[in-house]
Amino acid sequence: MKAEKVSELTTNRLSVYLRCLNELEARGEKTISSAALARKFHLNSAQIRKDLAYFGEFGTRGVGYCIEELSDHLRKILGLVKDYQIAIVGAGRIGSAIADYYGFSQKNFTVAALFDSDPKKIGKKVNGVPVHDVKSFSSVAKKANIEIAIIAVPGEKAQRVLDRIMKAGLRAVLNVAPVPLKAEGDVKVKTVDLTISLESLSYFLSGDPGSNEGDVKPKSPIGRTQ
Amino acid sequence: MKAEKVSELTTNRLSVYLRCLNELEARGEKTISSAALARKFHLNSAQIRKDLAYFGEFGTRGVGYCIEELSDHLRKILGLVKDYQIAIVGAGRIGSAIADYYGFSQKNFTVAALFDSDPKKIGKKVNGVPVHDVKSFSSVAKKANIEIAIIAVPGEKAQRVLDRIMKAGLRAVLNVAPVPLKAEGDVKVKTVDLTISLESLSYFLSGDPGSNEGDVKPKSPIGRTQ
Repeated sequence: MKAEKVSELTTNRLSVYLRCLNELEARGEKTISSAALARKFHLNSAQIRKDLAYFGEFGTRGVGYCIEELSDHLRKILGLVKDYQIAIVGAGRIGSAIADYYGFSQKNFTVAALFDSDPKKIGKKVNGVPVHDVKSFSSVAKKANIEIAIIAVPGEKAQRVLDRIMKAGLRAVLNVAPVPLKAEGDVKVKTVDLTISLESLSYFLSGDPGSNEGDVKPKSPIGRTQ
Repeated sequence: MKAEKVSELTTNRLSVYLRCLNELEARGEKTISSAALARKFHLNSAQIRKDLAYFGEFGTRGVGYCIEELSDHLRKILGLVKDYQIAIVGAGRIGSAIADYYGFSQKNFTVAALFDSDPKKIGKKVNGVPVHDVKSFSSVAKKANIEIAIIAVPGEKAQRVLDRIMKAGLRAVLNVAPVPLKAEGDVKVKTVDLTISLESLSYFLSGDPGSNEGDVKPKSPIGRTQ
């Protein structure tokens, strides 16, 4: 298993399981079976067993998982045994909304700094988080021990911002700008793009290929330049 | 191919190609090769050729794709030949930020209505978009010809909101609340969850399984209840 990486789809599901377990723990529950976990949170019980089995042997037949131990273990797998300081570049609407959201209740992730290039925003605070000049990213990020950066600037500025973030030595970036970005070396960029999600819904609404094959899978060449 | 559905990963990539082509079109370019498209936008040229070949025969060897025709065709595939009216349920920070973003420049998607249960918000406007009582969802959605709903309420309220949306006859939902939701019948729910994305970054930062195997893939049973 040395070279094998766990897929992002798997870690995404582990995140969902963890959140469900947290909710059960908050309600005072102690154990849960994969079937009950699946039923309560609209998940797939076979998938749960498979995902968890990959990381070790969990649960007891007929009794289920010990919620506290399992969620502790998921937190370890996901690297959630420490707090991460986050910087958001772009103090516009989206950046501010994210700063607001992670400024409060989210364990493990704290927005410690915002950055912008607009002189009107620099020096102000958004929900208590100071807005710095993006030019000072490297020094501020170092001082504030930032490990994750969120890019929330217009598309055409996003690659330049990523270059700056990489130059400052950060390795983990969440991109909410609507463009694909190029990371160098060992830097991981995860892009979250609402328009892409909306377009997958419009694709769905416009009819699936089975019912509407002629429109989406033409047999004649289209788009040829001659 | 009758029963085969195109995967969401594929339609997501088509969305990205379309956006890149739009940018090239805006710059006045007429044709582009898959290699140049890949280089300019940090994409994979073999993947581009494979994705597009699935939907027909595009491009000419040595000349490339005709940008206008290809983007027209991608728009058709993705159902982007019409405008979609969107409702956002939850007029808080995140909902308002999304309303703001899609209120302006985004073709094909227009936020026509916001909904909330807070009497202080109902009747107000957010960036020109009226906030309605969520209880009137069904009638307002019908009148405004809403086809896509975005759920931007706290997690514990999200399933009830989805139930209301489904009851109103909508079939396409984007969920930005941090919980998995249960859709009925032919309803598609797409969840976008920033915390899951951040947790996949913390997983990455905490070291991959290869380098840190003992921590994430224990051989002894953990989490057993007895």
